[in-house]
Amino acid sequence: MSERFDLIVLGAGSGGLSAAQHAARLGARVALFDPDALGGTCVNRGCVPKKAMWYAAHMADMHRLAADVGFETAPMRLDWARFRRLRDQYIAGIRDRYATRLETAGIRVLSEAARLLSANAVVTASGLHASAPHIVIATGARPYRLDVPGFELGMLSDDIFMLDAPPRHIAIVGGGYVAVEFACVMRGLGCEVDLLVRENLLTDFDIELVEALAAQMQAHGIRILRHTRVKAARGQPGVITLETTDGTAHGPYDALLWAVGRVPSSGDMGLEQLGVAYDERGHVLVDAFQNTSVPGIYAVGDVTDRKALTPVAVAAGRALADRLIGGHLEAKFDDSAIPSVVFAEPPLGMVGLTEQQARARYGNDVSVHSGRYTPLIWMVAGRSEQSVVKLVCVGADRRVVGIHVLGPGSDELLQGFAVALQKGLYWHDLKAAIAIHPTAAEELLLLR
Amino acid sequence: MSERFDLIVLGAGSGGLSAAQHAARLGARVALFDPDALGGTCVNRGCVPKKAMWYAAHMADMHRLAADVGFETAPMRLDWARFRRLRDQYIAGIRDRYATRLETAGIRVLSEAARLLSANAVVTASGLHASAPHIVIATGARPYRLDVPGFELGMLSDDIFMLDAPPRHIAIVGGGYVAVEFACVMRGLGCEVDLLVRENLLTDFDIELVEALAAQMQAHGIRILRHTRVKAARGQPGVITLETTDGTAHGPYDALLWAVGRVPSSGDMGLEQLGVAYDERGHVLVDAFQNTSVPGIYAVGDVTDRKALTPVAVAAGRALADRLIGGHLEAKFDDSAIPSVVFAEPPLGMVGLTEQQARARYGNDVSVHSGRYTPLIWMVAGRSEQSVVKLVCVGADRRVVGIHVLGPGSDELLQGFAVALQKGLYWHDLKAAIAIHPTAAEELLLLR
Repeated sequence: MSERFDLIVLGAGSGGLSAAQHAARLGARVALFDPDALGGTCVNRGCVPKKAMWYAAHMADMHRLAADVGFETAPMRLDWARFRRLRDQYIAGIRDRYATRLETAGIRVLSEAARLLSANAVVTASGLHASAPHIVIATGARPYRLDVPGFELGMLSDDIFMLDAPPRHIAIVGGGYVAVEFACVMRGLGCEVDLLVRENLLTDFDIELVEALAAQMQAHGIRILRHTRVKAARGQPGVITLETTDGTAHGPYDALLWAVGRVPSSGDMGLEQLGVAYDERGHVLVDAFQNTSVPGIYAVGDVTDRKALTPVAVAAGRALADRLIGGHLEAKFDDSAIPSVVFAEPPLGMVGLTEQQARARYGNDVSVHSGRYTPLIWMVAGRSEQSVVKLVCVGADRRVVGIHVLGPGSDELLQGFAVALQKGLYWHDLKAAIAIHPTAAEELLLLR
Repeated sequence: MSERFDLIVLGAGSGGLSAAQHAARLGARVALFDPDALGGTCVNRGCVPKKAMWYAAHMADMHRLAADVGFETAPMRLDWARFRRLRDQYIAGIRDRYATRLETAGIRVLSEAARLLSANAVVTASGLHASAPHIVIATGARPYRLDVPGFELGMLSDDIFMLDAPPRHIAIVGGGYVAVEFACVMRGLGCEVDLLVRENLLTDFDIELVEALAAQMQAHGIRILRHTRVKAARGQPGVITLETTDGTAHGPYDALLWAVGRVPSSGDMGLEQLGVAYDERGHVLVDAFQNTSVPGIYAVGDVTDRKALTPVAVAAGRALADRLIGGHLEAKFDDSAIPSVVFAEPPLGMVGLTEQQARARYGNDVSVHSGRYTPLIWMVAGRSEQSVVKLVCVGADRRVVGIHVLGPGSDELLQGFAVALQKGLYWHDLKAAIAIHPTAAEELLLLR
């Protein structure tokens, strides 16, 4: 017998929770299926534990800076096992609050995977049937596994969070934000780090700021090897050598992290059989309203071909619930200016277009205003690394189409400017604004 | 013989430098008079050394937090003399760069005070005469001196920066941002701190957030005594007792800081004789264009009755030069939404109206959205202090008229939102924006 709902959601990560909770708030009877932990990637294996580790590395960096400005201090060592225990307790607390909130909202949570039997019915391995006029796919993504010999000698990003002791010398393979963030965190916590990058770093970000970040990472002791393709890992756990396509051997390393991208978890749900369309990498194709190619089936979050960020999944889930349950037929979210931050040391952030993208789109209409400065406390410490701020503008009235920031504080300062950019921000708005002094944020107002 | 200029500026602080440099850039022949160090209060005795000390205290706080999240670490002690030397070197570097920039700009810098002989002529003590059609008063402000017995036993904020060793137990008298910032810095660096406040703390800020900050300051060990009026300081340097009007004696303290407000440096320049109008506290009265009551005499910065903040002085100086030299007859700056941050631990920021101000102005049209959360890394550390974010809105479309933030990151996150507020920010803009996760800044988007 099939239990009937108004909405079925597969996946209890950021996107699925958002859709389920908002739908329930609007009065829907909701079933939420996930065989794994509530909170999905972000809470359990992504943003949250990553940010906690970023803080630990940041504290270690601040401690070194403290010595440079006149603190008498002894070296500081992280007890990884204790930190992991505290972090995991915190994350368990988040999951508990989710469970309570879902129960309070009357959402039926089922700790099983489900397969689609049709566009309005699912079944689980234990034989539970459920049906609803709307089914939301929110099954997320997982780390990509390279098809090279010795792949199993390495960790995936999920595994890094299980470490109870630091590696001495880690190789990180990849050039995306996961690779860069872990390289900075590991280095901050005292490991030797080699970063092996197939082509270039952070190709979605503005080249000028990426190069400035790379220079700072190298100054902090991270060895960056670009245009380096790993064709095999050799050795045994704890003594790993990497072979690259140019015939070089790197290592030995006592740890290896593969951070070579992520793939959508779009298989094994019966979507192919129902004719749901995918892109070549397996992402479920959706339109601006999160519709898949099959009526009644929707998708949100990292399983789709939209930008793989928690807040994007949350916005998509919320808009979808507004549309399907709330009756707001035009509900969708504005993805024209999605800000994003790489929690490197220092952090790198952007919203809108890179200079390169703007020039490709607007040609000579583009004007760029960028500046560099050494943050106050670094100057006091005698450091000379520079933060970078950059505005990409278009037209005679210099409408801001891209904002790029690198340096301490970039993680927090960007959000408000992203809100302003989405409303339509002009050069003269920044010139007319009153600064907050002394901050990193004011540097965006002081550009010439 | 009198040397002729296009513009004479008295005072080489933030406002005077801004007016002088911008005027020179526009082609004016400028004379700049100041008997003291280039950079004025902000660079030498204000924002800059204060922020450096805030960082030192912040590092000490981060170090204690590090121990709570699993770092094995020994106590950290600041070598005040070394820190002071590094900080002073940094500040000397700023002054050097100013001197070079002024020289390059062809500005005539005179290290003397000047008196006005008329609305277009000044003279210095050494007998140097100068004339110009426009004279800008930018002489700033200085700490207020209470008329109580034993006042000389205490320091002023300027003196704090000269300390080569920490006090053991300091009394800070005052309730404004200077008092609060130094209380947090001193406590962060390990001193016992009593804060004696005449009435209430930070009366320009939203009460809800001020109380939340006060609670955190107290949790950090700062003793806050409100409604406490000091009538005398007794004892001798190093052993100071404070008598209050209710007959109580407080102390003994080994250090005392008077942070009881600031007074404009508007005397001894001949302004009274020329009929320039003042308010009752001695501020030079100016209109929106920085005109004083006497044609040809203008004033910018802390000497005026406008908000005493560096960026306000800078904006005023720039707009004035634009008007007097650049020929932009309508040039003035928009002071409708001046953001400000108290560099407390944690920082407190605001832009626009407090809830109280909004209710007084708009009555029942006001809606308030506020939220509290414990920052991620505090949760990991097992702390329960909460950050506060608050939006004050007006009308059915909920136009945002005030933004208030307390907690780590508030200092950097506010600027962009202040820009958005000045452009006209609505509740739906924040709801439509995509968050940056996990940050403090996103909390303003997540309010219900």
